[in-house]
Amino acid sequence: MSAPGKADAIARANIALAKYWGKSDDRLNLPAVPSLSITLDPMRTETRVELDERLDADVFELDGKVALPKETARVTAMLDRVRAESGIAAKARVTSRNHFPTASGLASSASGFAALAAAARAAYGLTRDDAKASAMARRASASAARSIYGGFVELPAGEPGDDALAAIPRHDASHWDLRVVVGVITEGRKDVGSREGMGHSRETSPYWRAWVESAPAMCGVIREAIAARDYERLGPVVEQSFTTMHALAFTSSPSTMYFQPASIAALQTVKQLRDRGVPVWPTMDAGPHVKAVCPGEAAAQVEQALAATPGVLRVLHARPGAGVEVG
Amino acid sequence: MSAPGKADAIARANIALAKYWGKSDDRLNLPAVPSLSITLDPMRTETRVELDERLDADVFELDGKVALPKETARVTAMLDRVRAESGIAAKARVTSRNHFPTASGLASSASGFAALAAAARAAYGLTRDDAKASAMARRASASAARSIYGGFVELPAGEPGDDALAAIPRHDASHWDLRVVVGVITEGRKDVGSREGMGHSRETSPYWRAWVESAPAMCGVIREAIAARDYERLGPVVEQSFTTMHALAFTSSPSTMYFQPASIAALQTVKQLRDRGVPVWPTMDAGPHVKAVCPGEAAAQVEQALAATPGVLRVLHARPGAGVEVG
Repeated sequence: MSAPGKADAIARANIALAKYWGKSDDRLNLPAVPSLSITLDPMRTETRVELDERLDADVFELDGKVALPKETARVTAMLDRVRAESGIAAKARVTSRNHFPTASGLASSASGFAALAAAARAAYGLTRDDAKASAMARRASASAARSIYGGFVELPAGEPGDDALAAIPRHDASHWDLRVVVGVITEGRKDVGSREGMGHSRETSPYWRAWVESAPAMCGVIREAIAARDYERLGPVVEQSFTTMHALAFTSSPSTMYFQPASIAALQTVKQLRDRGVPVWPTMDAGPHVKAVCPGEAAAQVEQALAATPGVLRVLHARPGAGVEVG
Repeated sequence: MSAPGKADAIARANIALAKYWGKSDDRLNLPAVPSLSITLDPMRTETRVELDERLDADVFELDGKVALPKETARVTAMLDRVRAESGIAAKARVTSRNHFPTASGLASSASGFAALAAAARAAYGLTRDDAKASAMARRASASAARSIYGGFVELPAGEPGDDALAAIPRHDASHWDLRVVVGVITEGRKDVGSREGMGHSRETSPYWRAWVESAPAMCGVIREAIAARDYERLGPVVEQSFTTMHALAFTSSPSTMYFQPASIAALQTVKQLRDRGVPVWPTMDAGPHVKAVCPGEAAAQVEQALAATPGVLRVLHARPGAGVEVG
């Protein structure tokens, strides 16, 4: 197979409405529970992969700077799999740019590894295969499996050993005009990475088993509510999916706390809006940001209220977006 | 039996290190899990009970004001039991004063109902019996059962129907110079009372069963660590007991959140102190205040750091205190 040698991809972050936390298989990075997300526009990562026969090792540049060695190692791990599948040994130069804050709980690893999987497969001359790209992205970062597809996307739980596990597109971006208004609370990287936090929860939280047992039902309700575009049914379960996930970290020993004071203020803002009749429910990931999920017609009001909350640095407004684009 | 007709009692608040949340029997107010607390000085309630044959109904004055009807109803419910036991029908005038904020998660119901039980029994001429007073206090507010005794006190879980359930004194106040430094975060009453919050958790939190299953082991470790005066063993379990209890409220649907932004700031202060080698671990009850538990020698440093935390209004410094005093 002849390789074009160079490819660009654009992928978007996603926000899980039904949360994933914890693995059933650490080596293959398989999630212990199913998750369901919205792929978000305009939170994009653009990635270029360029083969270079002269390189002894892959080179990875992130947001204009040479990446950290551990970040480069994760990129190389994925490229090694693409090289094995394509039969092409050449190393690559990877340049990636996030159009939103990196590694602070805003799903930059999701869009990043989705874009990388798609760009790498194309650069090494493999035929486009979204399920394979999704499984490959999953190995690097479980949430990245979902960013291969646009709109509303589910990643099932993985049985140990199932390395073909990939996300499943449920509805495309035009299905429902849900919005995600993000109250950005820090620009920095978080103290405790998701991967480390998940292992700590599984080892030390008394609620770990109850989480694994209850998460599939929450994901099921969210799947049905999205299919029916039923916001009234969706909202409370979106909240409970994030609270039960955060509680795992919080009840680990010692406790891992992703909240900042301003996170609580933003959650209070969301509740006050709802008490005044605005349809909006919160979700959070393993970081301090509060993500308010609402129907399109409520978004302007939510944006204004979050922007006025003390400690909220700025607000991002996202809507369902497309899957990975390869050029 | 002749009645003295009037009695005064002083009881102290307590802070549970092993938390109680939820009931095994709503009618008898029996706790679903065991708890273990320190009775705190100088957080006192002073209560006087005075029989008055001219009254048609009990009169209850709290902190210098006529109490709310629902508060008076809880007082009358307890007095009815004392009247049944004593055979004296007279109604009573009850005056009670808290020397710390009321109904905001600082255990004013614990010291209040302990003082009331002791004063009422004495005023109606019953022989002093701390186990009976503790059981009577428990019917009104489970944590009040513990404030009958000084020092370190355990309230076992109750089997449904066991109306004699009372607290058990484990060690008196001189056993260990542990301190509790309270970062007071609001002076007002909380939005969601404990009683209401507990029922909501039992009905809607996916972690309810895991809580009931894991709390006894945490209480056992705390009991052993107190007996051995082993702070290193005590601290992490004190934290996990409160996080697992708060997580129940937080994972209910809709979520009940007792944190204020300043609660998170105070928890961060406690963690930063510990990262610098100061032995201090946090606990919280169903309210926004953060209670830092530390050995006596660390208390001054903890007090200073909490007082300097943005959003902390003031700091209370408590130590193990005596049980109820009747005069």
